[in-house]
Order: sequence, then structure tokens, then C-alpha cells
Amino acid sequence: MNEAIIAQAEKILANRVRFEQGCLECCVLALIDADGYPTAATISPSKIDGIKRITFCTGTGSNWVKRIEKCNHASVCFNSEDEQYNITLVGTIEILTDIAAKKEMWFDGMGYYFSGPEDPGFCVLQFTTQRYSLMLNEHDANGQARGTL
Amino acid sequence: MNEAIIAQAEKILANRVRFEQGCLECCVLALIDADGYPTAATISPSKIDGIKRITFCTGTGSNWVKRIEKCNHASVCFNSEDEQYNITLVGTIEILTDIAAKKEMWFDGMGYYFSGPEDPGFCVLQFTTQRYSLMLNEHDANGQARGTL
Repeated sequence: MNEAIIAQAEKILANRVRFEQGCLECCVLALIDADGYPTAATISPSKIDGIKRITFCTGTGSNWVKRIEKCNHASVCFNSEDEQYNITLVGTIEILTDIAAKKEMWFDGMGYYFSGPEDPGFCVLQFTTQRYSLMLNEHDANGQARGTL
Repeated sequence: MNEAIIAQAEKILANRVRFEQGCLECCVLALIDADGYPTAATISPSKIDGIKRITFCTGTGSNWVKRIEKCNHASVCFNSEDEQYNITLVGTIEILTDIAAKKEMWFDGMGYYFSGPEDPGFCVLQFTTQRYSLMLNEHDANGQARGTL
């Protein structure tokens, strides 16, 4: 049962629209701030690998990075009112600064802020799911990440 | 400057559509789970009082309630890709079970789950903003909640 709902969620994510700037439709990324409060804000993914891994781009001086340096716990939420679904992913997030990752994840919209993928102020945030909670057309699925997720 | 952006954010929130079920357009509520991870999921507010206070309805046995009982830190995120805004609110959230609050916040959609506003399984979640971070049409505003917020 969960497998069918996961497959449906991954199909939804695969159909996310890519904007002219090269990033995917927005989701919400929640981190923990320096005072121990969750902070949920909108961000456009660079890449979505099913419900297993979501990758973002940002600046090394951003609040995202400052918070992740103190606490790597994170949650990503995809939703749509029109299609009535909620995809909640909970896991860890890491800051990648190697050139290969930065080149792979770079998208055009980043050109407003950085000189290019090799800009030292530009970095990648890679979220990996440990737990998921899906609600699609009133069907629920909850579970822990396993090898195949 | 912040006052103008706050006023614009509050105008956006005041224009949120009320569905046939009586609840307002969805937002994302992030709480902290038992393991110290943020968990961000979609929920429809019952009432929005500017950027100061957002009220939700749920069941006393829900994950929302279980998490708030352990940690009352919360974040609410409103966004729209069409209109390109992000409203991030960070603060505390409390569980209300008094009949007056339950009657005030009850909306038709709750009738699927509860017998009525006096159902002991039904409760209200009241979020109060301590800090806001707004991005509207590329204008930013950040601040702490004060008397007038």
C-alpha cells in the first residue's frame, strides 16, 4: 500500500514545473534556528530525486547555511491545494561546496547572485529523507526511509 | 519601510480564500518532533489575525498536539508562486480546549471528524508570532513582534 502511494508521490514530484530561471516549483524547507525554533520558508529546488533526496542552491552567508551549521535537522514540504496533496519529508541536510556538486546543481536564477558555479559564495544544500508522511487524495502513507527509498 | 511591507503582507493574508468547508487557504505549519527534527506539513487555518496570530483546528490525538505538548515552538509559512511572496512567522503555539475558543474556531470541514465544537476530541491550536520574515515582490522585511504587531 505504501509503495503505491510513494510511487504516486514520486510521480507528482517528477512533474514539478521547471521555471525559466532553471529551478523547480517551490516547496517549503524548515530548519531549526539558533534559538531552537523551527523556521519554515519557501525555496525552489534545483533537483528532486523522488522522495529520497532534494537539492537546493544558496549562498554560504545565507540564514539557511548558518542554521544548518548549528543543526542539520530539516523538513521539506511539497503541497498543492488544487491537487490536494501533502508530501512531508523529515531528515538531515548537508552543505556541499565541492565544485562537481556546485556545477551539477547550478541553475540560471543563481546568476542574479553569484558569478557562476565556482563562485566561493555559492553552495549546495542536500537534503536526505529519513522519514516521510504522505497524504494524496485522502490516502495516507507514513514510513521510515529504507534502502530503496 | 517594514510597516509598509507588514501592511502588504496583512492585506495578502486578509484576501486568503475561504473554502466551502469554512477553512482558509492552506499554509505550512512546522513543529519540532519528539526526536528534535522540524516537521513541516500543510494545514488550513481557521482564522488569520494579520501576521500576529494564526489559529488552526485539529484533534486532541493528532501528531500536531503530541508535538506541541513536548515543544511549543512553531513556524508558519504562507506563500504563492503566482504572486511571488513568502511570509515566514516564528513563535509559539498553544492548545486551547475551552468551549468558547472551540466554538469560535469551528469550521464546517471539522464535521467530518468531530461531532461538533464541544466534542472533547476537538481542539484549537493558537500560534502567536514572535519573529517575522517577509519577502514580497523582492522587498524584504524582518523583525521582532512588538506591541502593535
